[in-house]
This record gives sequence, C-alpha cells and structure tokens, in this order.
Amino acid sequence: MLKNIHKSIDSLYPEMVEIRRYLHQYPEVSFKEYKTAKYIADFYETLGIPYKTKVGGNGVIATLTGGKPGKTVALRADFDALPIQDEKKVPYKSKVDGVMHACGHDGHTATLLTLAKVMKEYQEELPGTIEFLHQHAEEYSPGGAKPIVESGAIDHVDAVFGTHLWATTPVGVLQTSKNVFMAGADRFEITIQGQGGHGAYPHETKDAIVIGSEVISQLQHIVSRRLDPLETAVVTVGMFEAGNSFNIIADKAKLTGTVRYLNPDIQEKVIMEMERIIKGICISNDASYTFNYTKGYPPLVNHEKEAELVLEASKNVKEIHKHEEVIPVMGGEDFAYYTLKKPGAYFFTGAEKEGNPYPHHHPMFDIDERALPIAAKTLIEAYFAYQD
Amino acid sequence: MLKNIHKSIDSLYPEMVEIRRYLHQYPEVSFKEYKTAKYIADFYETLGIPYKTKVGGNGVIATLTGGKPGKTVALRADFDALPIQDEKKVPYKSKVDGVMHACGHDGHTATLLTLAKVMKEYQEELPGTIEFLHQHAEEYSPGGAKPIVESGAIDHVDAVFGTHLWATTPVGVLQTSKNVFMAGADRFEITIQGQGGHGAYPHETKDAIVIGSEVISQLQHIVSRRLDPLETAVVTVGMFEAGNSFNIIADKAKLTGTVRYLNPDIQEKVIMEMERIIKGICISNDASYTFNYTKGYPPLVNHEKEAELVLEASKNVKEIHKHEEVIPVMGGEDFAYYTLKKPGAYFFTGAEKEGNPYPHHHPMFDIDERALPIAAKTLIEAYFAYQD
Amino acid sequence: MLKNIHKSIDSLYPEMVEIRRYLHQYPEVSFKEYKTAKYIADFYETLGIPYKTKVGGNGVIATLTGGKPGKTVALRADFDALPIQDEKKVPYKSKVDGVMHACGHDGHTATLLTLAKVMKEYQEELPGTIEFLHQHAEEYSPGGAKPIVESGAIDHVDAVFGTHLWATTPVGVLQTSKNVFMAGADRFEITIQGQGGHGAYPHETKDAIVIGSEVISQLQHIVSRRLDPLETAVVTVGMFEAGNSFNIIADKAKLTGTVRYLNPDIQEKVIMEMERIIKGICISNDASYTFNYTKGYPPLVNHEKEAELVLEASKNVKEIHKHEEVIPVMGGEDFAYYTLKKPGAYFFTGAEKEGNPYPHHHPMFDIDERALPIAAKTLIEAYFAYQD
Amino acid sequence: MLKNIHKSIDSLYPEMVEIRRYLHQYPEVSFKEYKTAKYIADFYETLGIPYKTKVGGNGVIATLTGGKPGKTVALRADFDALPIQDEKKVPYKSKVDGVMHACGHDGHTATLLTLAKVMKEYQEELPGTIEFLHQHAEEYSPGGAKPIVESGAIDHVDAVFGTHLWATTPVGVLQTSKNVFMAGADRFEITIQGQGGHGAYPHETKDAIVIGSEVISQLQHIVSRRLDPLETAVVTVGMFEAGNSFNIIADKAKLTGTVRYLNPDIQEKVIMEMERIIKGICISNDASYTFNYTKGYPPLVNHEKEAELVLEASKNVKEIHKHEEVIPVMGGEDFAYYTLKKPGAYFFTGAEKEGNPYPHHHPMFDIDERALPIAAKTLIEAYFAYQD
Repeated sequence: MLKNIHKSIDSLYPEMVEIRRYLHQYPEVSFKEYKTAKYIADFYETLGIPYKTKVGGNGVIATLTGGKPGKTVALRADFDALPIQDEKKVPYKSKVDGVMHACGHDGHTATLLTLAKVMKEYQEELPGTIEFLHQHAEEYSPGGAKPIVESGAIDHVDAVFGTHLWATTPVGVLQTSKNVFMAGADRFEITIQGQGGHGAYPHETKDAIVIGSEVISQLQHIVSRRLDPLETAVVTVGMFEAGNSFNIIADKAKLTGTVRYLNPDIQEKVIMEMERIIKGICISNDASYTFNYTKGYPPLVNHEKEAELVLEASKNVKEIHKHEEVIPVMGGEDFAYYTLKKPGAYFFTGAEKEGNPYPHHHPMFDIDERALPIAAKTLIEAYFAYQD
Repeated sequence: MLKNIHKSIDSLYPEMVEIRRYLHQYPEVSFKEYKTAKYIADFYETLGIPYKTKVGGNGVIATLTGGKPGKTVALRADFDALPIQDEKKVPYKSKVDGVMHACGHDGHTATLLTLAKVMKEYQEELPGTIEFLHQHAEEYSPGGAKPIVESGAIDHVDAVFGTHLWATTPVGVLQTSKNVFMAGADRFEITIQGQGGHGAYPHETKDAIVIGSEVISQLQHIVSRRLDPLETAVVTVGMFEAGNSFNIIADKAKLTGTVRYLNPDIQEKVIMEMERIIKGICISNDASYTFNYTKGYPPLVNHEKEAELVLEASKNVKEIHKHEEVIPVMGGEDFAYYTLKKPGAYFFTGAEKEGNPYPHHHPMFDIDERALPIAAKTLIEAYFAYQD
Repeated sequence: MLKNIHKSIDSLYPEMVEIRRYLHQYPEVSFKEYKTAKYIADFYETLGIPYKTKVGGNGVIATLTGGKPGKTVALRADFDALPIQDEKKVPYKSKVDGVMHACGHDGHTATLLTLAKVMKEYQEELPGTIEFLHQHAEEYSPGGAKPIVESGAIDHVDAVFGTHLWATTPVGVLQTSKNVFMAGADRFEITIQGQGGHGAYPHETKDAIVIGSEVISQLQHIVSRRLDPLETAVVTVGMFEAGNSFNIIADKAKLTGTVRYLNPDIQEKVIMEMERIIKGICISNDASYTFNYTKGYPPLVNHEKEAELVLEASKNVKEIHKHEEVIPVMGGEDFAYYTLKKPGAYFFTGAEKEGNPYPHHHPMFDIDERALPIAAKTLIEAYFAYQD
Repeated sequence: MLKNIHKSIDSLYPEMVEIRRYLHQYPEVSFKEYKTAKYIADFYETLGIPYKTKVGGNGVIATLTGGKPGKTVALRADFDALPIQDEKKVPYKSKVDGVMHACGHDGHTATLLTLAKVMKEYQEELPGTIEFLHQHAEEYSPGGAKPIVESGAIDHVDAVFGTHLWATTPVGVLQTSKNVFMAGADRFEITIQGQGGHGAYPHETKDAIVIGSEVISQLQHIVSRRLDPLETAVVTVGMFEAGNSFNIIADKAKLTGTVRYLNPDIQEKVIMEMERIIKGICISNDASYTFNYTKGYPPLVNHEKEAELVLEASKNVKEIHKHEEVIPVMGGEDFAYYTLKKPGAYFFTGAEKEGNPYPHHHPMFDIDERALPIAAKTLIEAYFAYQD
C-alpha cells in the first residue's frame, strides 16, 4: 500500500504546488489566519473528511478514521505567516503588503492537505486514525500549540509527528535529533522611561535613545561574559522604537526581542542578568523602566524512540539520500508542547532552493517545492511505522 | 499715540486670548498649515488690510501703509505646530491627535493679529509701513523664512523685528543679544544597512540595531572629546527606528537627529566627525550606510543697533521690569534668514506660566497669556523707535 | 605488583606533601623555572635514575628502563607557576612576592617525583620504559610542550599520559573525554596608537583610553553576535595598560588577552572579526593600531582508545569512586602537542579542598593533597594497562 | 630706570638661556624638586639676596627690599616638571628618564632668577619690595601654592603677578583676562572591584576591564548630554590600569583622571553625575567601587584692576606687539590660590617655537627662548606700575 501511496502523492504534485502558491500569495500573520483556516476547513469539507475548527484559536483538526484498528497519530502542519515584506520576484509573490510566508508554513499546509486527499482514497485499508492537525500561530508566542494541547485535542492521541521544510538543508536530506532538537524561545519588552525635551537642551532631559543604546550594548555581555562559554544562548533585540521628531529628545524607548536557550537554568540566568543590566543602566541615567519577559516555547525535545522511528522509516522514501542526526537548532518551535504531552518527533525536510541562499524569515526566502512530496511521504511512513 | 496704542492692546486682551486658544485647539504641523493660513487671511480680509497669501509657501503678509511717511518694517510671527501629543488638562487643549502648539506660535499669531487690529485704528497717524509677516513652517527645516526671503517679500523692507514667547523666562522679562542669539540648527538622517535574518541566528546577520546603538554611543564623543571644550555644540538623535518583529534581526536602522552650533567652523567639524564615526563603525561591522546631512537654519545673529533699539524701546513697556542681554540659546530659529538679509533683531518675551515648569516641545507645554500684550507692545515700540 | 605499588605510594605520602609544599613556597614563573628544574634533576640524581636537563628549554626527562620488555610510555607533569600574589594564610604560602603555584603544578611535580621514587624499587620487574617527563612553561604560550616535542624527546615514545589536579572536582572523581578535552588557547596584543596631549584639551588629541574602551566593548559582540550560538569561544582582555599621568591624555593603549575555542574554524573567524573591529574603531577615531595574534595551544584532543584505557584502569584505584566523561573544558593545555604527535590521554584528578572554593589562577587557590597519591596511582595504572 | 633694566635683562639673555637649559636637562617631578630648590637657593645665596627655603614644601622665596618705600609685590615662578619622556632631539634634552620640563617651568624659573640678578643691581633705587616666589609642585594637585599661602608667606604682600610661557601663542603676544582666566582642575580615582579568575571562564568572574570600559564610555555622556551645552567642562581619564596577565581576568580596574570646569555649579553637577554613572554601571555588573574625587585648583580668576594694569604696563615692552584679552583656558593653574587671597593677575607670554607645533605636556614640547626676557620685562613693568 505504501508504494501506491507514494505514487499517489507524486501524481498530486501539481495540486500540491498550486495550493502552496495560492497560500503564498495570501499570507496572514499569527492569530489572524482567518481566511487560511477557512481555506483548510473548506478543503476537508470538499474531501468529506470530518473536521473541527477553532481548535485552541484558529486551529483545524480533521480526523481520518481508518477501516482497520490501530493507533491514533497526529500529523501536524502550522499555517501562519510573518510580518515581512515579500521581496522575491516570482509570480506567486505575496499579494499582502508587509506580510509573507517567509518560513514555509504554506508548504507545510499544502503537504498535509494533499496527504489527506491521498489518504482518503486508502481509508478502508488504513490501520488506525490520522489526525490532520493544522495549527495556527506558530510564529508568535504564546502560539497555537499550547491552547490546542490545553483544549484536550490530543488527549486521545498516541503520538505526534511533524516536519519543517528547511531552506538551508539540501533537498533529499532529512535531519532530526534524538534529544533537544530546537531551542527554547522567549519574548521580552523593555521600556526605558527617560524624560523628553527640546533637541537643543539635552541637560534638561534624560535621553531615552542614548539610554536604550547603552542597554543594547550591555546586553551583549550576557552571552560574551556572563554565561558559561559551553552553554548556548542568544539575546536578540529585534525592534528599537523611540522618538517622533528629529529635534525632540525621546522620552521613551521600547526594545522588543527574543531569548533562545537549550538549558532551562540558562533561561533563568539570562532573565536575572537582563534585569540587572537594565536596572543598573537606568540608575546610571536616573531613568526608570519596565521589563516584561514572556516565557515562550520551551526547548523542543524529541522522544528517542519516535526519533529513531523517523530516521528508520524515512529510509523508505527514495528521494531521501541522507538521514542525519544533528546538533540542536536555535530556532524555537511550539511543536515542543506536543512532545511534552505525548510521544513524538519533529524533523526537518531539506528544501533548499538552488540559487536562493536566503534563510528563513528573510524577505527573499523561498523553498524548493520538490520537498513537499518528500515531506508527505516521510510523514505517512512514520505513521505506518508507528502502527507496527 | 503710543500710550493710546498700549491701552487699545490692553482692551483687546480678551480677543487676543480667544484667538490664541482657538489656534491652540486646531494646530497644524509645518508645511501643512492650510487652515491656519486661511484663518489669518480671513482675519485681514475682515479688517480690510490688504494681504498676500502663499508667500514662499503658506506664508501670509498683510501690509498696513501709514498715513505719514516713514520706514517699512516687518513684524514677524510664525504659526506652525509640532507632532507632539497634547497632554495638558485645559479646556483649550489640542483637538488634533498627535499635533500640538508646543512652542507658542499660536500666541505669536494672536499677538500679531491683535496688534494689526489695533494699528488699523491708527493708520492715518502712522508713520511708515508695517508688514505683518505671518510665517509658516518654522519648526521644520528648510522652514518658511528662507523661501519667503527668496520670494523677494522683504526686499523693500528696512528692518525686521520678531519675538518668541519664552516659557522658561518669567513674565516681565525681556531678553535679547547684540550678537549671536540662537544656534545654527541642522538635521541629519543616518541609515545603517546591515543584514536581516532570524533572531536565533545572529551569526548569519549584521544586526542593524546593535550597529545603530554603537553609532549613538560614539556620537557622544564628538562633544565630549573632539570639540574644543570652549566651543558649543549639541548632537541629538531624536528618532531610532529599526525592526518589524521581535524575533527577526533588523536589517536596517534609521537614526534621525539634529545638530546645534554657534560657530560655523564647528558645524563643519561636527559633520566630518559624524561621517568618520559612522564609517568606522560600519567597517567594524561589515555594514554599509547612508548619511544625509541637511544644513538647516544658520545661527541667528542680531544686528547690534537694532538689538540696542529693542532693549531701549522695551523700557516704554511698563509690564517689563527687566531688560537682559543673554548668552546664546541653543534652539534654532529661521528668523536668522531675515537678519542675514536685512537689519533686525529678535527677542524673547518672558511667558513662564506659574506652576507649569514644562519647557518648549514638551507635551505639557503652556504659556502665561499675559505675555501676549507685552509682546505686542514691545514690537510696536520697536517699530516706532526705528522710525526715529 | 600494582597492589604493592599502591601501598608504596601511600607510604611515601608524607614526602609527597613535603615536596609539594616546598615547591609551593618557591614558585617560578614560566620560562624562568631554573631552580625548580635543578630541584627535579637533583632528585633524580639522588635516586640514581638517568635524566636529561634543558630539554626544549627547562624541561627534565628521567628514564626508568624496566627489567622486562615492553612499551615506552611518557608520564608528564608540568612545573611552572603564575604571576599571582599568594593570599592564602597557610604555613606553606609562597615566599616569592607576586608569584604563586596557583594552578597545582607543584602537586603535579610532587606526584611524578614520588612515583619515580616508588618505581625505582620495582625497576627489575617493570615491563617497558617510563619516561618521567617534567615540562616547564605550561602557563605561557608558546609553552614548553612544543619545543620538547620538536626536540625529538618523545619520538621513541609509544604513548603519553598526564593529569591535572583539578580544584573544582571533588577528590575521588576522575574526569576525561574521548575527544576534545580542553580548548585551544591563543594570545593577542592590541596596541591603539592615538595622540596624547593635555588632559584639558581633548580636541587636540585622540584619546587612546576612550578608543581602547570602545574596542573592549565591541569585542563582546564577537561571541554575542558574530559566532554561531552553538559554537564555543571566549575572547578575554586580561590587561589594559594606558596612560602615565591623571592629567595627560594617553597616546597609546595596550590590550592583551586570550582567545579560547574548540573548533579551528572558529579560531579563524574570531581573528578576522577582531581585526575588523579594531580597524573600524580606529578609523572612526582617526587612530592607528597594531594587532599581534599568537596562535597558542591547539585544542587538546584525547585519543579515544587511550582515554577509554584511563577510564578503565582508574577503576583499580580504590579512592576513585566516580569515572566521568565530561564536556570540554575552556582552559588551554599544551599537553595538546603530545597527543598531536603520539597516542595519549589527559585526565583530571579531583582535588577540591573542603572549605576552599577558589578556582585555578585565583590568589586563594589551593588543593586537597590527598589527591596526589590518587594521581600517582592512576598514572601508573594507565602505564601498566598500556603494556597489555 | 626701567629702560636700563630692560637693557640689563637683554644683556643677561645668554645666562638666562643657560639656566633654562640646565634645568631642562635635570627635571624633577612635583613634590620631589629637591635639587631644583637647592639650585634656586644657591643662586640667591651667590647673589646675596636673603631667602627662605622649604616654604610650604619645596618652595623658595627670596626678598629684595628696595632702597625706597613702596608696596610689596610677589612675582611667582613655578619649577616642577612632568612624568613624560622627552622625545626632542636637542642638546639640552632631559637627562632624566621619563621626566621632562614639558610645560615650560624651567623657563619660568630662569626668567625669575635672571630678573632677580638684574634687580639686585637696582636695589637702592628700587621702590617697595620684590618677593621672588619660586613655587614647587604646580603640576600635581593639591600643588604648592596652597601650602605656601597657608604658611602665611604672602600675608604681608600687596599683590601677586605671574606669567606662563605659552607655547601655542606667538612670541610678541601677551594674553590675559579680566575675569576667569584658567579652569578649575580636579583629580579623581575610580576603582572598580569586580572578581578575577581564569581567562577561559568569564562566567565565574566580574570582568573589571569590561566594566571599566563601560564606565569610560558613559563618562562621555556627562559633557555630551548632561551639562548645559553653553557651559564648559572636560572629563578626562588619563590612566587605565588593570590586569597582570593576559589570561587572567582582572579583578580590579583603576581609572585616574581630571575634571576641568569654569563654573563651580558645574563642578558639583559633574561629581554627582560621575557617581551616578559609576554606581549604575557597577550595579549592572554586580560589582563594587570606590570613587575618590579630590577638588584641585579652583578656577583662576584675575582681579580686574591688576589685569588692566598688566595690559597697560606691557605696552612698555617693545617686543610685545599684541595685548589680548582672551576667553578662558581649560588648563588648571594653582596661581588661583594667590588671587583668592590677594589682588593679582596672571598672564601668558607668547613663546611659540617656529616649526615646533607641539602643545604643553607633549613629549616634543619646546619653547622659543626669546620669550624669557619678554616675560621678565613684563613682570618688572607690572611691578613698577603697581607702585604708582
């Protein structure tokens, strides 16, 4: 049967690409993916596969109950996009200003939908039950996975698998880890409250831009000086917003960013050092601050047995010529919540596009669409392997 | 006659306040002062004083030709507002979101309009000609004064006087200088072009926020280390704009600010050192930049004779009990263009409001309205003194 | 025989401690260890074991040829001290001002000398040949190991073993690694050439202290922003020397420091980024610089088989209750040169002193002397295991 | 008589130069000027002019009581040198390693000694009394002037005059001010106490060099952001001392420097802001500090009448073609203590050496010796003018 499934997937490749490109043109940012969720629901409606919408937010879960007994396995694809301006010159370029599928979630969705269409054909012979788990809001903590898990939607599930199309890994390479696979990812907002005033009279003010710049500068010391060099962490300020006019000294600076880590002890240490730095710099400038730190996705830890199963099962996918165990990746991923609750494994499906060297979250990001059927085949192979 | 004029001004005080408060509620930012210009023009229309509109932009000049021979003197009031949110709790608070008369130009306008109304009554006895020069766009370089001068509008004028209601000087105090009175004021925009990317992979990026922060930090050294301590300059970055998402490393940072100086040599030195700093920091980060420096208003230099005349004439204004020569003020003022072209002097009319300690350009800025008739009386005293 | 050797070692414990404490009181800094080398040579002279002095510098190698055939194995101990002021309150405190055995090399030497004295008794029964390799100058790159290896002194040797008494590991614990065990350790000197002058006239100078401080600040960004977060590196500036008088602006600043890394690619990247930073900062200050980077000890990579042998052999040492494989240690160690040339392994012998929490290179550093016989036993066990 | 005195001075020019060059070769740093004081005393011994030694330290005061009644006027010359290495290529180059007359005090001394030799000839005709005040330790606060004043040595004096040979003012130009002439000059020492440790383990330390660099960086903001741009101040760190070894993280950093100001309010503000910065930075690094601020020489304020007298009297010195009133000079000068106690004035005697552009305190500093007789003539002219 699996051989035939692979063939069916291949035969639906044009539709897979069409779906992906359609979604690529109509991206929606996290928590606002109303039309995308509707698109997914309509797809299952047409297929005649029962589904639930608004799962934990905009999530959609479709359930394909096989004709034979077996385990229940969720296959997950996320479907939100990013607030990035698409700068690619392609026909399927985003039509939404300032929003872009710059992380490949359009491909994830096209993969899972097409796989569902294929598997509907094999429903009677199918052992077990597939839960097609379409998750919203992966890009923006607290994300969609947490409320989906909290809604009880995977309580009855035996295992969860998922994949990320990975633009910096060549097509034909599968990567995963038997332990920590992706980093913990938190979000913070620092607001420096100085005192505004006329640009010509700095002594009557507390210049929030100068203070904010000092904070940025000292935050670098956390990784360079205050953490064990053998540990891993990233402290990134992604936004610096301050001032309304060139000749008015800004009274307030807002710094928003992310922290990544692999080890929960490091997370606590980073928070403590950040607060220490902000506090000290504000004292040295007679300013005040607020510091909001939102713990986001925990590190994604694969279960050893399920990760081995993926590595093994993927050997049946002829397009995959390399099956790698890799060191952790610093990106966060709320798939972490599924493997905290249930056995499961997450893996990367190589999707590097020749001639396009741009990484995830880049305005020029794109993927090699030949990776989509490979992802579909690996997911269904893992599903069947788990039934054994 | 002057005694009567003073009395007339006093009797119109309620209208003066009403005009000022009306304008205060409907502020317009520089170069967009269409309604304010219309209001001014309508006022002269009603008075029956001939006027020109669209002088050098939104400028309005009304001409009151006296019944007796004499010199032609322009009295100038500016009328634009600032992109600041009014945070005062007063009935006449700005009704325009994010725009505010935070520098007192509403008061300048009310002063000059009311003075025009008074002087219309004395037209026949009046020696010489008063040009009521209502200037737009003082707050935003290149400003309104330059195009007004370039339009030829003051070519025939013998002298120009003007005043600023000054919120940090007590009512009853007049301040001016016989030489440099206000600083040169320039504008700059620095754009750092780094390389964006995922917040978890700093090594694949050139973090524009970190680079921008270093530039801010080093710009402080221009004043602290690179200029003669006896010279005077200010380098302020008023806006820091970078990044769109907390977890995407910003590819670009835009720093916008102002430079103030009293001595043209210092201006050139500051520009050179700024470029040196930006260039070096970009090299140290393998980034690139653009640096646009717009020379704005030159230092405002009063003419000695006209400044002395203001000091002397103001002694006839009984509300003024102190006549000060002061050291230069760091704020820029495009009145500078008038005294580059014609004899003239600019002065401050004390307008500090009891219990309101907020400086110009502050969201809580306000003035003591009793300063308005004082300003009107001083201007007309200077006018008459100049006729002698 | 090994059981008897263990007993012999135990019985010589008082002498071992005496030797260690003697050396502790007379420390000599790297490359100046003349008296210590003499002490060692005299010891072998007395024992009647043939030795060579001035091996690769101040090195001493004594050769104990066993009565039975076997392999030749070098056991290495280093013997230099550090330019640190001893601040301990103990009877055996350093008698040399500003110099201290703050890394335990006194203990290494006492261990190896005592072991030689013991083994001399067993010479006839001994299989193979022990080379007692007393190495000078471990603390200061280019170190003593490199010239010793280059002198050909270990050309005939089959394997090399060595240990470090480790003050932050409890007594009874043995630690090693089957791969990278200790970091690469380089040295650099940055000289910033600004322009000096009177402290009151900064504008006539280029303040080398300010420039040097900026370099320090930006060097932090290498680890925080420019290296892959999953890689490991340390950039430390250990000395900042600038200025001769409080009121003279320094013309020159000298920054001296160390770089640590595990991966040679990272070493090259760090060098490139350091140069980039220094160059850019100097351009931004119109200053010049020299940058001398001396590649020091490469990462110490244990041979897998020899490391396993140490782990196994150490099980015969009854005082050791824990045999750990550990992640790499950031400290550099020129033992690296031996394992680049010959099979071998390096390990830590736990030597934490109760109530003394101070790390290596600290003015309060000390060790638990009970670790010395443990080290001796483990070394000789490894020697015998290697003979099998 | 004055005409003859001028001639006598001219005729002693070769001896004046000889004395200056002798002193130039044997400089002594502040408070250690034992041999120079002896040289001066011996000179007066030979002349037969009574003198006192050890006045307020190493000071020497010789008293020439004229044959005619008159006022008592002190003429002051300082005689200490600086800890700077002489890098000039001249026959009279300093013979003392690391010490140099880099501020011209050798010339001051030669001027005053030669003037004394001349005036001895005119003793009988001389009205009043000249106190030849040779002051030690001008370069190093608390200086020599304060203890000399406190010793009562000028209690009986009517006025004090003094001059500085000024290397950046052309020969033939005299400069002074009727009010603030030279800046207040303070000294500070900041000690940052972090925590030392091994260069490879920054997370176990608090890196005093990194912390010190941050302090340096933020100190720049005092002048750039926290003081009124129209006020004048300099904050210079002249020495940064930290660390003993390239691979040991420094536990302590010592920053020593000077503050200059013209306005005592600014002095207090600078101290407050320095403390604020150091405290905040230490909090942000969990470090501690000591901050010793020693108020040094106050601003040197000339007395108006005496300054006018110098300007007038100097017109009798034919070599002087320009008599300037100048803005304040940022250098400090403990002559300030004399004018706090007694009427007096200080002035600059132009001494710029053609082809030698180096400022005071520079390793290449030198003066045009033709300025020495000009200084002598101006001092004696002022003396006589004061008698009238």
